[in-house]
Amino acid sequence: MAWYQVKGNETDVVISSRIRLARSIKGYPFGDRLDDKQRAELVTMTEKALAGQNFTRTDLGSLSPVAREALVEQHLISREFAAAKYPRSLLRNDNKSVYLMVPEEDHIRLQCILPGLSLRDAYRFAIECDELLDASLDIAFDERLGYLTHCPTNLGTGLRASVMLFLPALTDGGYIPSLSHQLSKIGLTMRGLYGEGTAPRGCIYQISNQITLGLSEEDILHKLEETVQTIIEKERSLRAAVTGEAASLREDRIHRAEGILRYATRISSEEFFSLFKELKLGISLGMITSLSNETLNTLLLSVQPAMLSEGASTPPKTPAERDRLRAAFIKHALEVKHHE
Amino acid sequence: MAWYQVKGNETDVVISSRIRLARSIKGYPFGDRLDDKQRAELVTMTEKALAGQNFTRTDLGSLSPVAREALVEQHLISREFAAAKYPRSLLRNDNKSVYLMVPEEDHIRLQCILPGLSLRDAYRFAIECDELLDASLDIAFDERLGYLTHCPTNLGTGLRASVMLFLPALTDGGYIPSLSHQLSKIGLTMRGLYGEGTAPRGCIYQISNQITLGLSEEDILHKLEETVQTIIEKERSLRAAVTGEAASLREDRIHRAEGILRYATRISSEEFFSLFKELKLGISLGMITSLSNETLNTLLLSVQPAMLSEGASTPPKTPAERDRLRAAFIKHALEVKHHE
Repeated sequence: MAWYQVKGNETDVVISSRIRLARSIKGYPFGDRLDDKQRAELVTMTEKALAGQNFTRTDLGSLSPVAREALVEQHLISREFAAAKYPRSLLRNDNKSVYLMVPEEDHIRLQCILPGLSLRDAYRFAIECDELLDASLDIAFDERLGYLTHCPTNLGTGLRASVMLFLPALTDGGYIPSLSHQLSKIGLTMRGLYGEGTAPRGCIYQISNQITLGLSEEDILHKLEETVQTIIEKERSLRAAVTGEAASLREDRIHRAEGILRYATRISSEEFFSLFKELKLGISLGMITSLSNETLNTLLLSVQPAMLSEGASTPPKTPAERDRLRAAFIKHALEVKHHE
Repeated sequence: MAWYQVKGNETDVVISSRIRLARSIKGYPFGDRLDDKQRAELVTMTEKALAGQNFTRTDLGSLSPVAREALVEQHLISREFAAAKYPRSLLRNDNKSVYLMVPEEDHIRLQCILPGLSLRDAYRFAIECDELLDASLDIAFDERLGYLTHCPTNLGTGLRASVMLFLPALTDGGYIPSLSHQLSKIGLTMRGLYGEGTAPRGCIYQISNQITLGLSEEDILHKLEETVQTIIEKERSLRAAVTGEAASLREDRIHRAEGILRYATRISSEEFFSLFKELKLGISLGMITSLSNETLNTLLLSVQPAMLSEGASTPPKTPAERDRLRAAFIKHALEVKHHE
């Protein structure tokens, strides 16, 4: 099961937690200096290191552009990895939500994505996999610099820890710019995950560590967790502070969003995000009981253009067709849930 | 059962048919020259003429302003009759949908309202009642002028025949101004029934005869019926002519309207009319099967401010409270229908 179909902790605010490790193999050059033979060797040796661990390998070159884009939409691979022209594979263990890109900018990019606030579990699964790699591969590690990476910003731990947060109240209250500024001062980066601007689509943000060098893995995880806890509390208190007329209007918006999601026959991607925002908020406030966070998360990923096309018997040819397909997909998904 | 809860003919375009007769009693003055004793006499003699015919009498003076307004909203009495200060009564036979105001501008205003296109039946019920009045009262009738009325515009037949039409396609196509002009040239008047402007709320219009003198009752009914048939055909052909992208957008609007009607927790009167428009159109196009025309008609009348207040245990005090009450009333009405 994919992470977004599984229950998590603090899911009223935290959508998912992600750990990414960058690793390199001694004796192999980086980036453009790698030749295709070497790239194929990296894939083979990584696959071998993980043999018997329920990893399946997908040769990216064998996929259609739409299928590759669908992997990007699921955050399983980077846009750069999808677009690259050289031989490369995705190794995935869906049970443990662990995914490896070989080779990306670094020889191996390993990530684990879990639902809700689960940085420790995600780190544990990532490290379990990392230990398997370390046991049979000659990982490039320097006593002073730590793990060697292509880009200096990843040197050291090679660790990027991130959380995907749902912050409607902080967004509507105008708190995001100052929060983002405060985070940057303590070495964390905040960005809207979908779309640009001060109010990104769906009020979904990613917060991650900027610094990988000079800090221990524990330092990085601890700081991020502590910060996220503070943000969770602030977001929750703002949600709870809405009363009177504003609360009544919010309640109406939330229920309308459910009505539209269930009845509309055309839904644009942009509109989906605003419905998502209202419904996820409605779930957290106990106003929506007919939908779960897992259903919403599944929709969040599944109604993106490439994911939709991948799941359709006839891929949509126009934006209007795609909006109709999106609405039909949502209706079907909600009816299935309803009958379960 | 009220007319709006009953099935009718041509209800995709014709909401209701109405016949109104103006009658006067010889020997009684008109308007302000009537004294309260005479008014009370008119009520008593009319009630007596209809004895044993299942008419119930409501003394308007005994009703609260809200209760009187609710009768106006149901089109059972005129606004002037509701607002008058003198003794006056409404006599109603809900089975036959026949209602009498005594005294209004004329001594007796008798009307019959039926669902759909039913001018002949409405006329028959009205005349049955008129004959009962004629049998025991001394109705003012002049060989040359016909029935004598207070206002000269009602002289002659004293008959006003009208239909309430639902014309979304003619409205959206911009045909209403020229249609209205054409109708005026053949002695018919067209007006938006709710709200002002070229696109009245709900796309609901009333067409009635302007002329009561020099035409037979048959002439009046025939001309109105014939005209309505032409309008019905034009409206239907315009609805059917929508194809492609426009049809897809219309379908989406219709289904969204159902979603909002079923899920919103605040609905203004203005919004209700636009939802009504989409849903009634959706029923006529076979897209909405979970709602009937009778349910929509019932809502059309019931969600008006005074009707809402009348039905509520605690009348709403603010527009916001009324909008919440309206949404709750609608939700309840639809759920009851759903479980029937």
